[in-house]
Amino acid sequence: MKIVNIGLIGCGNVGNSVLRALLSKKKILENKIGISIRLAKVAEKAKKRLKGARIPKSILTKNADAVLRDPNVDIVVELIGGVHPAKEIILKAISQKKHVVTANKALLAEHGKDIFKAASRFGVSVGFEASVGGAVPVINVIKNSLVSNRIDTIYGILNGTSNFILSRMSEENCSFDRALSEAKAKGLAERNPRLDISGEDSRHKIAILALLGFGMGVKPADIYAEGIDKIDQMDIYCARAWGYEIKPLAIAKRVSSRLDIRVHPTLISIRSLLANVKDENNAIYIQGDMAGDVLLHGKGAGGAPAASAVISDIVEISKNISSSSGRKGMSKFKFDKSLKGIYRINDVNTRFYLRFSAIDRPGVLSEISKALADNKISIAIVTQKERKKGQPVPIIMLTHEAREGNLNKALARIDRMSFIAKKTVKIRIER
Amino acid sequence: MKIVNIGLIGCGNVGNSVLRALLSKKKILENKIGISIRLAKVAEKAKKRLKGARIPKSILTKNADAVLRDPNVDIVVELIGGVHPAKEIILKAISQKKHVVTANKALLAEHGKDIFKAASRFGVSVGFEASVGGAVPVINVIKNSLVSNRIDTIYGILNGTSNFILSRMSEENCSFDRALSEAKAKGLAERNPRLDISGEDSRHKIAILALLGFGMGVKPADIYAEGIDKIDQMDIYCARAWGYEIKPLAIAKRVSSRLDIRVHPTLISIRSLLANVKDENNAIYIQGDMAGDVLLHGKGAGGAPAASAVISDIVEISKNISSSSGRKGMSKFKFDKSLKGIYRINDVNTRFYLRFSAIDRPGVLSEISKALADNKISIAIVTQKERKKGQPVPIIMLTHEAREGNLNKALARIDRMSFIAKKTVKIRIER
Repeated sequence: MKIVNIGLIGCGNVGNSVLRALLSKKKILENKIGISIRLAKVAEKAKKRLKGARIPKSILTKNADAVLRDPNVDIVVELIGGVHPAKEIILKAISQKKHVVTANKALLAEHGKDIFKAASRFGVSVGFEASVGGAVPVINVIKNSLVSNRIDTIYGILNGTSNFILSRMSEENCSFDRALSEAKAKGLAERNPRLDISGEDSRHKIAILALLGFGMGVKPADIYAEGIDKIDQMDIYCARAWGYEIKPLAIAKRVSSRLDIRVHPTLISIRSLLANVKDENNAIYIQGDMAGDVLLHGKGAGGAPAASAVISDIVEISKNISSSSGRKGMSKFKFDKSLKGIYRINDVNTRFYLRFSAIDRPGVLSEISKALADNKISIAIVTQKERKKGQPVPIIMLTHEAREGNLNKALARIDRMSFIAKKTVKIRIER
Repeated sequence: MKIVNIGLIGCGNVGNSVLRALLSKKKILENKIGISIRLAKVAEKAKKRLKGARIPKSILTKNADAVLRDPNVDIVVELIGGVHPAKEIILKAISQKKHVVTANKALLAEHGKDIFKAASRFGVSVGFEASVGGAVPVINVIKNSLVSNRIDTIYGILNGTSNFILSRMSEENCSFDRALSEAKAKGLAERNPRLDISGEDSRHKIAILALLGFGMGVKPADIYAEGIDKIDQMDIYCARAWGYEIKPLAIAKRVSSRLDIRVHPTLISIRSLLANVKDENNAIYIQGDMAGDVLLHGKGAGGAPAASAVISDIVEISKNISSSSGRKGMSKFKFDKSLKGIYRINDVNTRFYLRFSAIDRPGVLSEISKALADNKISIAIVTQKERKKGQPVPIIMLTHEAREGNLNKALARIDRMSFIAKKTVKIRIER
């Protein structure tokens, strides 16, 4: 039986699950694919992480370089995360004609283009299924199942922590802070949850999907992102009353010859599948010109789900290695030149949910709607809540489709009006 | 550039879409995968189906055998459907070491084992992504993305026509007949819709998924199947009142060492994603021991979605052909011997929705519940509707989990009671 040798670097949560699954499922995998996937080298600095794992001492090392230097290693599995030294490790592996599997979203989002170009040059494959959506097989589906499709849209819930928090706020009608504490207690949020709730994590993931689906390298910093931390209980409540849930979406759409790419909390119809994606689950819509909408849903994080994705990459590459004459790279990466850059957020056309906080006096609604009309914003629904004594009255509005730049002009004018007590809340709406 | 030659047999709805996409997307695919996929031979008896397709006359034939005889053809794409002569065509292609791509669910459900064994013997691949779920990439995901997983459950909505009908009945509160007419008007149901609404079509599809996911060849005739044609508006209404939708499910579960496999309309919580799968869409849950639940959703039928799936198979096999030294078969099929047969429906444990039609007189509920209790069926909720003059009163009940055989004994006794006006309606419930 053909043997493929794995060099594993990093045994944290995901690495540990990969390690244990490769050991416990070795025979099953051999039976299924007819290839023996063998752990040849494991690099991990924290010894205690390997406790209980039955691996011979001879293959253990604290030094990633020992994995790269091992001539037997066919596939380097990088699971240390972060940009450095992961980037250097991966590029070195590639330059030594080793295939690479990684779950490193930050690295691929920032330097994916360089890594794929290097892989192409040295004729090796880079597997990255686990970098987006955990066990949700979005990379495989875009790359293989939808290979004949022009991808028109990719959007969905890519951050489990944010989805958990908004789900809790909606279902239990609780505050952001309480929902965040619950997420931390469940191990779904880091002690410093900034990456997740600021939209930074989703930004990395949608950058990777844009590269794969649209062949376009977009710098994460160029992607407009808004976190969920400004969402108030009241907005969730009001949205629901009008048949919407607020969900943390990442969106990438081909619009004419540019890419509309952004990350923000979004109102979506309560009757849509995405609105019913609960807890820490991820869900991704991919729209192709032949297949139509394909939705993928599942566990976006966790050791075992991510390990399932990592091993699917290992197996795909192993099959290629053992069927090819040499170590030929299979998955060439093609960059699409048809897209001419991305939309600035001000140029995006969408519908909006607005919540004005106004002192209740005659003429308020008239002045607000005049400012909107002057900027070509037309109102679809409006409701004014009853006033609680001493508090400004909330006026809730849904607009028809409008250019964001126009709306921002109107809001700048409105927020300077004397009766406006607080900055107006603006949340985008998607169908 | 490596060339892979395709022989296409059958240019109906799906075949036509494949033909046109292979022609119009030739360059795009070449760019993406670095292989030229060339139509070498096209067999179709009805000339008018090829109208407007720009294919040289030299590659056209009315005779499937001409495709099989063509030594250039690497992959035979069988899209004529039905068991005969598709089976003979495919087996002949395999024996000539040609790879096969097919969308033929009836054939694979009935003779999949033979076909995969033959393919294994001759070292060729059989692609069948389009046989289940149209553009929903369930085969690729089970085979590749979840390769390291022990599959525990596969279930979902596999028949778009049935789902459309039940969706309409639920949303518009209309009768089965009206919903069926609407499906026919939309081209979603055949003039004779028996295959779809009887559960026969889902039975074929779940048989294929059981073979792939559990390595178990189950004859379609051995799979318990109930159609949706006995679902009454009233049951949909009552189910909704208790927070359930009725959906046409196909289910395959590993329970101890046997397979629980069945097709029937089912009550599922209105808050679940499956309950929100509307219209003619398909949705499939796959539960793996590492990945957890993965849900796939999309267009289960139609020319373009199925063609998207067919071409994904063609591309996968083409990559294998051009990377291998010879025409080595890549996707060996392993049969699992760990499962010891399937459950008889009477041995299945589940919860039930029951609707009794009773003449309203004292003691009715007491006699019904005694018959249930005597057979170890315990009641979770019960409600008795108000009587309309001259009509029997409906008594609606949800049971706790019970063995179906026990329930059937109780119902046989109840349906013989003098106050029972009509056969009791029984619908299974899944979480």
